[in-house]
Amino acid sequence: MKITLIGSGKLGTHLYKAFSTSTKIELVQWVNRSSKEHKTNEGVLLNNQWNPKLKSDLILLAVSDKSIRSISESLPKDSFVVHTSGGISIDVLSQKRRGVFYPIQTFSEGRSLDFSNLPIGIETENSLDLENLHQLANSINASAKEINSEQRQQLHLAAVLVNNFTNHLFVEAAKICEEKQINFKLLLPLMRETVEKLNTLEPQKAQTGPALRRDQKTIDYHLKLIKNPQLKKIYTLFTSAIQKNNDQ
Amino acid sequence: MKITLIGSGKLGTHLYKAFSTSTKIELVQWVNRSSKEHKTNEGVLLNNQWNPKLKSDLILLAVSDKSIRSISESLPKDSFVVHTSGGISIDVLSQKRRGVFYPIQTFSEGRSLDFSNLPIGIETENSLDLENLHQLANSINASAKEINSEQRQQLHLAAVLVNNFTNHLFVEAAKICEEKQINFKLLLPLMRETVEKLNTLEPQKAQTGPALRRDQKTIDYHLKLIKNPQLKKIYTLFTSAIQKNNDQ
Repeated sequence: MKITLIGSGKLGTHLYKAFSTSTKIELVQWVNRSSKEHKTNEGVLLNNQWNPKLKSDLILLAVSDKSIRSISESLPKDSFVVHTSGGISIDVLSQKRRGVFYPIQTFSEGRSLDFSNLPIGIETENSLDLENLHQLANSINASAKEINSEQRQQLHLAAVLVNNFTNHLFVEAAKICEEKQINFKLLLPLMRETVEKLNTLEPQKAQTGPALRRDQKTIDYHLKLIKNPQLKKIYTLFTSAIQKNNDQ
Repeated sequence: MKITLIGSGKLGTHLYKAFSTSTKIELVQWVNRSSKEHKTNEGVLLNNQWNPKLKSDLILLAVSDKSIRSISESLPKDSFVVHTSGGISIDVLSQKRRGVFYPIQTFSEGRSLDFSNLPIGIETENSLDLENLHQLANSINASAKEINSEQRQQLHLAAVLVNNFTNHLFVEAAKICEEKQINFKLLLPLMRETVEKLNTLEPQKAQTGPALRRDQKTIDYHLKLIKNPQLKKIYTLFTSAIQKNNDQ
């Protein structure tokens, strides 16, 4: 399978690495309009311009949400163009053969990440293209799931809750630990188990803590301990939200 | 080491299992005042009354926060009594030889949990008792860390953020998925990586998403997608808190 990859940000770089090590993928060009041309370690040229002569079966856009439309418009109408965004509809692509390939994961610089078994939300508009995206996922050992644009946008919202907002809670917990000279990493096994529990328990059944058991003494004490007014608001809001969910 | 364990709730049961399989612990009695007497699988009697004739080196209270004081008062003044609560000061215990043994973990029914390498916050008032609590942790392969009551109460607050509140975000994400017939477990690898990232990155550096990159289009779209007013408040509050943290 011949692939053109556009974008060399965090996701683009992770995809580039996965494609380079796959025997089923031939990466014909890797493009980033804003970076300088250079040879990568694997000898692939990172171009700053898309080369229309290098034909591929599929052009994959790992670019910012706001660039998807204009890049799609600059590409041939008869290409198969696929974006990788959770929040953007398939309709933004101007090609007839269009698709979405959304890895449900967070990508950071300096983290080596395995695509093995990673769920990838895929969407296309015909069954042949769907088969191609299944193949693309297979080629990096990922696990493709068909989800439509509406589902994907809801899934992206859910991903913001379980990743971005969760990480914000971790930031605030780390600040508390730092202030009292406690090693934040003492919390890692707890954080892991908070996730791993959900292999066998629904999150609603996994809820514990002072809010759920209406332990007002501890709640009041925690509110007294919190100095940051924004965190105080978060504490109050979550306490009431957990109790409201439990009443339903 | 001879241990008396009081309490057979979630933590009590997990501790009972860990002690039963340790070769270094002799569990001389296991007490729960509200349950019926019965023989456990391992032949230990779960009593409904504490038996003063069965002497032990240490009495461990795995009971609710609000029962710690009264149970401590009912026990001999010359016993070494240790509670297991994150939120309660050591001062609540009326014995001269007193301590805290706080496993920094969440315990659920039906989850088999390993104490190996689990951090346990310990506190005592003399070095001999401290040595005893180190031994107790060692006997179940856990990892004891000395933290005082003030630190432990802050750590407990941090634990509420990274476990209870994080789980509430998981509950809300699961509701979104359920409504759109999306399998919530598609989010598990993302949730895992959100935690595992922190092995190598500080949480502040791991922050990503529409709030951080001030992607107002996605933020507005998400707020439009959210029907639950409480979740809308959470979304707005976190978006502004993430941006404020980033400005600092």
